Amino acid sequence: MKKMISMGLRFEDAKLLVLDQTRLPHEEVWVDCRDCAHMAELIKTLAVRGAPLIGVAAVLALAHMAEKGASKPEIIAAAKMLRMARPTAVNLMNAIDQVVLDKPDLTTASVISDAEKFFQADVLACEAIAERGASFISDGDHVLTHCNTGGLVTAGIGTALGVIRRAFEQGKKIHVYVDETRPLLQGARLTTWELQKLGIPFTLICDNMAGFLMSQGKVQKVFVGSDRIARNGDFANKIGTYSVAVLAKFHGVPFYVAAPRTTFDEKCDSGADIPIEERHPDEVRAGKSPHQAPVWNPAFDVTPRKLISGIVFEDGML
Amino acid sequence: MKKMISMGLRFEDAKLLVLDQTRLPHEEVWVDCRDCAHMAELIKTLAVRGAPLIGVAAVLALAHMAEKGASKPEIIAAAKMLRMARPTAVNLMNAIDQVVLDKPDLTTASVISDAEKFFQADVLACEAIAERGASFISDGDHVLTHCNTGGLVTAGIGTALGVIRRAFEQGKKIHVYVDETRPLLQGARLTTWELQKLGIPFTLICDNMAGFLMSQGKVQKVFVGSDRIARNGDFANKIGTYSVAVLAKFHGVPFYVAAPRTTFDEKCDSGADIPIEERHPDEVRAGKSPHQAPVWNPAFDVTPRKLISGIVFEDGML
Repeated sequence: MKKMISMGLRFEDAKLLVLDQTRLPHEEVWVDCRDCAHMAELIKTLAVRGAPLIGVAAVLALAHMAEKGASKPEIIAAAKMLRMARPTAVNLMNAIDQVVLDKPDLTTASVISDAEKFFQADVLACEAIAERGASFISDGDHVLTHCNTGGLVTAGIGTALGVIRRAFEQGKKIHVYVDETRPLLQGARLTTWELQKLGIPFTLICDNMAGFLMSQGKVQKVFVGSDRIARNGDFANKIGTYSVAVLAKFHGVPFYVAAPRTTFDEKCDSGADIPIEERHPDEVRAGKSPHQAPVWNPAFDVTPRKLISGIVFEDGML
Repeated sequence: MKKMISMGLRFEDAKLLVLDQTRLPHEEVWVDCRDCAHMAELIKTLAVRGAPLIGVAAVLALAHMAEKGASKPEIIAAAKMLRMARPTAVNLMNAIDQVVLDKPDLTTASVISDAEKFFQADVLACEAIAERGASFISDGDHVLTHCNTGGLVTAGIGTALGVIRRAFEQGKKIHVYVDETRPLLQGARLTTWELQKLGIPFTLICDNMAGFLMSQGKVQKVFVGSDRIARNGDFANKIGTYSVAVLAKFHGVPFYVAAPRTTFDEKCDSGADIPIEERHPDEVRAGKSPHQAPVWNPAFDVTPRKLISGIVFEDGML
């Protein structure tokens, strides 16, 4: 397999390395991914996270396995196992289906070449999304974003954060408001880290400050990513996205979604069909609340189409 | 001075003790408050917090000083200093003005007797608020609350949480959804702790989950406290309250405020006149984001009257 490098994945010298995103921003630790079971674990524990990236990482793990001599049945079994690692982001299922499970004339060689193509396609999709999306950001805009949707979650420059980056690279004077994104703080830990590296001005806020910020006229656009988009345009994304969408609607702030086509699920008629992962209560308790406090911890929520100004894909808008 | 005991304050044996709320729920540490400068520090660092309580605590500290023999000018100087400890909750200013700075015929003896009366009046106000407010909660309601507004923040049973407690004591089957209330997690740390002690069923959520919860029809009422109410009915409360109010309006969920009259500021025509305290960025960074990440950290926000179904006072509604 040829060398492939993104912000959070490295395939080189016959090794598949992943950046442990749970350790960022204070430590940059690269983990040597041994096999597909290991990759499934890395995805479940969020060392590897973000809808597009978990699809790319899964097919690279399958290709790595093929390269090391696994048989076709072994690859198919691993693909089925990896497909179950997380339930909400459909990119994972779509990627594995495309490269292995729905592949006509599947061979170990096809897995490798298709994984390479998949990686490259994601890079190009990010570029196209960024170009199209940046046209919606004006000079002087303050843009609010939720969770992390940058170079860490794709093979390329990202989705929503890729759009923001491209607007900045075009010379537009923009400012980014970063929702910290409880409970796992992907905004506070990862989006801030990426924006610092890129030199893009930003301000970190708690999720519950977004409304007050909008009420002061300080947000002109909202850009977020997605984990699954239903046929009717409803979409799932990181918990808290729905609240931001309602707040944006109330304040008349345009609200955009940026995602590759691999996020689209034609088997889901509407948001009601999207399975929502619930995670462990300790993520919310975080050692601060009483130890046994009852908790509700959905990792995602669903935003209905009526709250969305537009969805930016690599090949058009919805 | 006679013995006075609330959940977070104890005056007995000539000592003024305060429960350090920053250590809850895992440690219950009572601090011996030496003097008014110490009380101002305890208020600034949030060991003593909550709009009604900081008013009560401040006048008890002044009365304690009077009892130990301070002169009238010394008490007035301490009152002026304490009045500046925090800027948003007007209860602090109102309490100090009533007992010291605006008191006709001020004497050291009047400070002591007025502090006792102020404490008792707050207890009775809580009872009256709870009775009136509980009439708005129906059997079977799921009630969302933000921040902590219970026995910890008043001399009595609390404001919004007092209302919830009274509805529960009346035999209504209710369930409380507790916003964790970033950045300082008063909901996750303190409201859960109080509800556990009272045996009231609850579920802790991240602030950004409230919208998704409402979209599923799981919230029938919202009850919150307040730090300052303007003459036109706009009110300031813990950051995040405004977002909850917008979400409640969007979902048709009644949104109530519960507060004593000491929270009313007749000098403020509208919410625009209420000063909003901004606190240190490290409260938001919390060791998780890049160390120098720029942060916006308003401790409060302002909710306009149009989003409020009603304000419950001890002596009536607004």
